Amino acid sequence: MKALYLQRGKLSLCHDLPIPQPEHDEVLLKLHLAGICGTDIALLNGYANFNGVPGHEFVAEVIATGSDVDSHWIGKRVVAEINQWCGHCDQCCRQHYSHCLNRRVIGIRDHQGAFAEYLVVKANTLHIVPDEINNRQAIFIEPLAAAFRIVEQLQAHSYQDLILVGAGRLGQLIARVMAVQERQLKVVVRHEKQQKLLQGLSVECISESAVEAKSVDVAIDATGHESGLALALKAVRPQGVCIMKSSYPEPIKLDLTQLVIDEIELLGSRCGPFETAIRALDNGQIETESLIDTSYPLDEFHSAFERVAKKGVMKVLLSPF
Amino acid sequence: MKALYLQRGKLSLCHDLPIPQPEHDEVLLKLHLAGICGTDIALLNGYANFNGVPGHEFVAEVIATGSDVDSHWIGKRVVAEINQWCGHCDQCCRQHYSHCLNRRVIGIRDHQGAFAEYLVVKANTLHIVPDEINNRQAIFIEPLAAAFRIVEQLQAHSYQDLILVGAGRLGQLIARVMAVQERQLKVVVRHEKQQKLLQGLSVECISESAVEAKSVDVAIDATGHESGLALALKAVRPQGVCIMKSSYPEPIKLDLTQLVIDEIELLGSRCGPFETAIRALDNGQIETESLIDTSYPLDEFHSAFERVAKKGVMKVLLSPF
Repeated sequence: MKALYLQRGKLSLCHDLPIPQPEHDEVLLKLHLAGICGTDIALLNGYANFNGVPGHEFVAEVIATGSDVDSHWIGKRVVAEINQWCGHCDQCCRQHYSHCLNRRVIGIRDHQGAFAEYLVVKANTLHIVPDEINNRQAIFIEPLAAAFRIVEQLQAHSYQDLILVGAGRLGQLIARVMAVQERQLKVVVRHEKQQKLLQGLSVECISESAVEAKSVDVAIDATGHESGLALALKAVRPQGVCIMKSSYPEPIKLDLTQLVIDEIELLGSRCGPFETAIRALDNGQIETESLIDTSYPLDEFHSAFERVAKKGVMKVLLSPF
Repeated sequence: MKALYLQRGKLSLCHDLPIPQPEHDEVLLKLHLAGICGTDIALLNGYANFNGVPGHEFVAEVIATGSDVDSHWIGKRVVAEINQWCGHCDQCCRQHYSHCLNRRVIGIRDHQGAFAEYLVVKANTLHIVPDEINNRQAIFIEPLAAAFRIVEQLQAHSYQDLILVGAGRLGQLIARVMAVQERQLKVVVRHEKQQKLLQGLSVECISESAVEAKSVDVAIDATGHESGLALALKAVRPQGVCIMKSSYPEPIKLDLTQLVIDEIELLGSRCGPFETAIRALDNGQIETESLIDTSYPLDEFHSAFERVAKKGVMKVLLSPF
C-alpha cells in the first residue's frame, strides 16, 4: 500500500508497504481522508522519537474484522480514538483508557498512523460517524474532542470568564467549543485571518498587549510556546486555572513561587470525549469547514507539509487517492 | 519597645522602636510567644525584599482597641491571620480574603511582624485562642491552618493515596493533618529524627529511592527545592494532583509536556482556615509539643536563628521576655 513514512525526521512516500492484517480484536480500515495536526509537524522535528507512518486525525471505512470482532462493523464509516489501550493496567482498571500505561498511540507511539491507504485499530476504540457528518468534518472529531476535554476538566470548577491564548488550528476549535459554554470568552489573536475565522462566535478578540493581569478565572494556552504560557499565567486570577493544551518542545522555566502565592492550578489537557465531538458536529453546533485550507493527495505530501508550516494556515488535508 | 528589625538581609535588635498605635479598625497586641518559620529564614535571604520587623506565627493578648473595634476584645488571647485584607478589592468581594489584591502580610509584606513586644493588626483578622490551647501550641495555629489548606483544596477531588515529600517543619504538620484524613499516606523522610517524630501516626515513612513512578493520586512537595518537586511529580499518577506547599527561591525548569500528556494538576497552596486548625488543636487531634526544639528570648535572637538553620531542627520559639 501507499503510505508516508517518517524515519529520523525525514518523511518519504512508500508505495509498497504491506497492508496490515487485523489481530483478533482489531479491524482493518480503508482511509477516506486525514488531517495534518501540529503534533505531526512536531514529530517531524523529533517529538516522541517516532519512526513509522504518522497521522492520527482521520475518517475511514471498516473493510475487515479480526476473529473476535462482530462483522456488523464491515462497511461502517468510522473514526478511532488515538489511544489504543491495553485494558488491564492500573489506569485501564480505573477506566482512564486514554491514560493506559501500556498504550500505543496512532501515528505517534508504537502504532502505524493514518497517512496511508490502510490502517488497523482496535475495534473497541471505534466510533461510527453519522451520515450527517461529511468526511471533511469528520477529520475534526479527534482535535474537537481534545478541545471538549477542557469542558470536562472544568466541570468541577466554578468560573465566569476565560481567556484563550492562541487562535491557530487547535485554538480555533477551542474557541468554538468554549464560545457555546455561556461564559465570557476573550481570544488573543495574532493575525487578522485568525480573527476573521472567529467572526460570528460569541467571542471578544484582543491583542496580546490588551491582556490584563489577574483578570480571568480560567486561561488556556494553545500556543505551545513559553511566551503564550506566560501570557496565560499573567491573565489568571488568584485561585484560577491555567490550562496547557499543547505540548512544549523544551523544558520551560516557571516562577513557581507566584503559582504558590496565588494558588494557581496549572493543568495539563490532552485527549477528549469523541462522542461529545460527534454530537456537536452532528447537530451543527460547531462549524469547521471554514478552517480547511487545502486538500492534497498523498503523492503531493511535500506541498501539503510546506503549506501547513506557513503562518496562519489552518487545516491541511491528505487524501490517500 | 524591643523588636527584631530586618534591613537589607541583616537582622538586629532594636530597644526603642515606637509602640504602634491601632487605627480605627485595629487592635494593639502584647506578644506572648512567636515561632520562626522557613519563610522567616527566606526573608533573611532576600525573599519578598522585606524590610521591617519579621515574624508571623504568634500568640498575643489584646491590650487596646481602635475607635471602631468593640472593647470586649480587651484581654482576649488571640492569633491573627497573616493576610491583612482591604475588604473592597475584586478578591475581597469574592470573599477570597487571603488573596486580597491590596493585602499587607504580617511580617512579610508592608506590615510589622511579631518578633517584637507589641503589634497592631486588624480586628477582623483575629481568632480567639481557647483556654485548652497553651501558648506553645498556639504558635502552630498559622502553619497548621496552611497544612489544612491542602484538605480544603482536595475536597472536590477523589483520591485514595498520597505521598508527602519533605518532613521538615511544615512537612511534619502536613503529615499530621493528612494522617487523619483516612487515606494511605507515605512520607519521604531524610533524617532518622524526622521519622521518629512521625511515630504513632498512620503514616508509612520511605526513603527517596523507594518512591515509585506514577504510584499515587496526590503528591505534596513541602521541600521548596527543585529535587523535591521533581520527586513529587514523578510519584503522581496520570490525572493526579501535585501540590506545591513551599515557596521556591529560584525559577524552576519543568518538563511541561509530561504535565500535558499525563494531564497532571500542579497546584499552589498557601494560607488556610484558622478555625479548623484551632479545633484540631483544641480537641487533641493534632499533637505539636514534640515539634518544639528550643525557646529563646528576643535578646538571644542570634542563637535562635543559628539554631533554626541547623539540619533537622524543628520549631524554634522567640519570647519577647
